[in-house]
Amino acid sequence: MGRIDKESNIPYYLQIKDILESRIKNNIYPRENLIPSENELSIEFGVTRTTVRNALKELQKQGLIYTEKGRGSIVKGSKIKQSLMEFYSFGRRFKQKEEGEAYSKIVEKKEIICPLEVREYLDIKDEDKIYEITRIRYVEKEPVMLEISYLSQMLFPGLFDNDMENFSLYDMIEYSYKKNITKGREYIQPMISGTKESRLLNIEKESPVFLVKRITYSGEKPVEYRKSIIRGDRYVFYTEFS
Amino acid sequence: MGRIDKESNIPYYLQIKDILESRIKNNIYPRENLIPSENELSIEFGVTRTTVRNALKELQKQGLIYTEKGRGSIVKGSKIKQSLMEFYSFGRRFKQKEEGEAYSKIVEKKEIICPLEVREYLDIKDEDKIYEITRIRYVEKEPVMLEISYLSQMLFPGLFDNDMENFSLYDMIEYSYKKNITKGREYIQPMISGTKESRLLNIEKESPVFLVKRITYSGEKPVEYRKSIIRGDRYVFYTEFS
Repeated sequence: MGRIDKESNIPYYLQIKDILESRIKNNIYPRENLIPSENELSIEFGVTRTTVRNALKELQKQGLIYTEKGRGSIVKGSKIKQSLMEFYSFGRRFKQKEEGEAYSKIVEKKEIICPLEVREYLDIKDEDKIYEITRIRYVEKEPVMLEISYLSQMLFPGLFDNDMENFSLYDMIEYSYKKNITKGREYIQPMISGTKESRLLNIEKESPVFLVKRITYSGEKPVEYRKSIIRGDRYVFYTEFS
Repeated sequence: MGRIDKESNIPYYLQIKDILESRIKNNIYPRENLIPSENELSIEFGVTRTTVRNALKELQKQGLIYTEKGRGSIVKGSKIKQSLMEFYSFGRRFKQKEEGEAYSKIVEKKEIICPLEVREYLDIKDEDKIYEITRIRYVEKEPVMLEISYLSQMLFPGLFDNDMENFSLYDMIEYSYKKNITKGREYIQPMISGTKESRLLNIEKESPVFLVKRITYSGEKPVEYRKSIIRGDRYVFYTEFS
């Protein structure tokens, strides 16, 4: 979890700042949550409260935390809370602009022979071509999600003639291709971002991210397979039981 | 469902390995079940049994299957699939022993002054004491989950007198303390494992894991706050929409 190096030339408060910063980035102290109190931190690191306070000041300067009177220091930046109990569509959700300006950019559009992995999900024959669309989703000008969608060319001829940056893919499937989306299944895993994703999402290499695989159906027919890489510092999924 | 590409430069046995691997991962060949015999696979893929055997050897090296004399190859260690649409309890779920032997070990039991972070969730006053219970959950002798539960001492006097290794905490809450669990809310984030978690979960340092925070309610009263660190290589969460 990180400890002070008492032999180091780096002042204690900066060492503590670095440790806390890395905990924030690794989600050990998640956004909109309190970090431990000055007292708790001074005990943990074996330093005075003044030293801890100086470390916290540095984090504040960097815009990583803010202080609320009577509560303590809180990690800044509200996360996007995404329910897992509803079928979500970035394009549809953010069209409503509830959570700040949002848009998509297409990174790549390709027509390819269906890769093995995708063939299994899309129930597609060997030689069939598919569309592969890679998009980055932005919220408040920050990239938050990298999405790679796979769709059968046979089911969606001329897909690339549509305006894929400004319209929801699910709307296109339903309105232009007259296929009702009837169900979806999603698999969620934690992942460590690689070089490419980190660059596209503008995060440090080897950051914690979600890998979400989704299969969307129209009736019993899979219509889309999608892999999303979602920033762990910006998104939190939630679910409720009762 | 996947076929060999005879034009490809990738050797047949590796292509077959990839196909079988993806079937295992997609639960087409569920864990603890036999996969088709060498003979069946050699007919399906139109290759020799030696080629199939080489593919199986690769899967064995990866720890995905094991061989039992006279039976064949059996799927091992595919991920534990956990639905996000139901309230799960490790103790209750695995009591049914559907998914292999499971048990819990208590790492630490403490009575502490409620830390700030927990106070927020449990709706507890400054000086109140709480129980902190750290447990490791094992499935098939492998640690898969590290859980830290926080409960109010006032609500659950004498909690530590119960057998917490062999009984579900939720059962205790309901049967011994007569508090019906009425709802729960769960927040899921990706995280990179630190030194302590990695050691306790027997994974490499800085592995991708889930951080799951759960608040459990009895009526409108929060009764437990729980942080779980769950191995990303052993668990996958899923959810369905329709």
